Amino acid sequence: MPFINSRVSVPMTEQQKEALKQQLGEAISIIPGKSEQWLMLEFADNCDLYFQGDNTLPAAFVEIKVFGSIPTDSLDKMTKTICGIYEECLQIKKDRIYVKYEESCKWGWNGSNF
Amino acid sequence: MPFINSRVSVPMTEQQKEALKQQLGEAISIIPGKSEQWLMLEFADNCDLYFQGDNTLPAAFVEIKVFGSIPTDSLDKMTKTICGIYEECLQIKKDRIYVKYEESCKWGWNGSNF
Amino acid sequence: MPFINSRVSVPMTEQQKEALKQQLGEAISIIPGKSEQWLMLEFADNCDLYFQGDNTLPAAFVEIKVFGSIPTDSLDKMTKTICGIYEECLQIKKDRIYVKYEESCKWGWNGSNF
Repeated sequence: MPFINSRVSVPMTEQQKEALKQQLGEAISIIPGKSEQWLMLEFADNCDLYFQGDNTLPAAFVEIKVFGSIPTDSLDKMTKTICGIYEECLQIKKDRIYVKYEESCKWGWNGSNF
Repeated sequence: MPFINSRVSVPMTEQQKEALKQQLGEAISIIPGKSEQWLMLEFADNCDLYFQGDNTLPAAFVEIKVFGSIPTDSLDKMTKTICGIYEECLQIKKDRIYVKYEESCKWGWNGSNF
Repeated sequence: MPFINSRVSVPMTEQQKEALKQQLGEAISIIPGKSEQWLMLEFADNCDLYFQGDNTLPAAFVEIKVFGSIPTDSLDKMTKTICGIYEECLQIKKDRIYVKYEESCKWGWNGSNF
């Protein structure tokens, strides 16, 4: 039950979405117990993002919401991997990418809660 | 002070929005102390959502943000009701709907905080 | 590492975005340790927002996500300032504006975590 809310300032082609989808589906398993089998993604492109007062350079805000908690020792690998994916697929520099995590123990699916 | 952030992959007609608005306005009172009187809704349709690696089938991510905490015993009814509403109004299968809750004790309105 | 997710029901001109960007960049320093130097903003206009069952009057949902925690005594000034900015720049009445805060201790940038 992870959800990745992906908001980027650049346009995305269908090919880029497909590549991102595949790579995020692999990356999610860095967090113990998570897999693409339960992963939902939202891609929003052409977002109106400012970073450090500037909206002319590409930027990304990637929010990773998970059911339960994320072990600290998987965070470093996860953030490194996510930044690498966005930099490679969309040419957004890592120093203009935030990766924020949210942990929730109240999460439902298919009419009942985990 | 609840906020329901509703993101669906399908298009929504004005009639569907109206029906959803009305039903969500009733459903929110399942959570003790909450009512449509304080409810804000955002509807986003045609979202680029993938679930289990697939973006061809309808899916929804419904995020319910509330001031304060949600009693566990109201969660089951809430998730069941929300999934039922989205399945009925938008023909999105319950097993492609996530309902995620977020509790916050820092929430402002009208220039000051609750 | 704050992120302000700004969702309004009204259209925004480039001038209004610029004014908001500048004023939010100043306002963020009300929270100790935060500055525009680390601030990311997302502006979404023409959002489909309902408040109290109504979508005909302008409304706004402003979500302020920060790394770490926000001292309670800075919250009042922050909410008052944010509501004032949106009312002045976009003519949205304060009593149709929610300002919600989210604190996270898991936040990455540039490939590693804070």
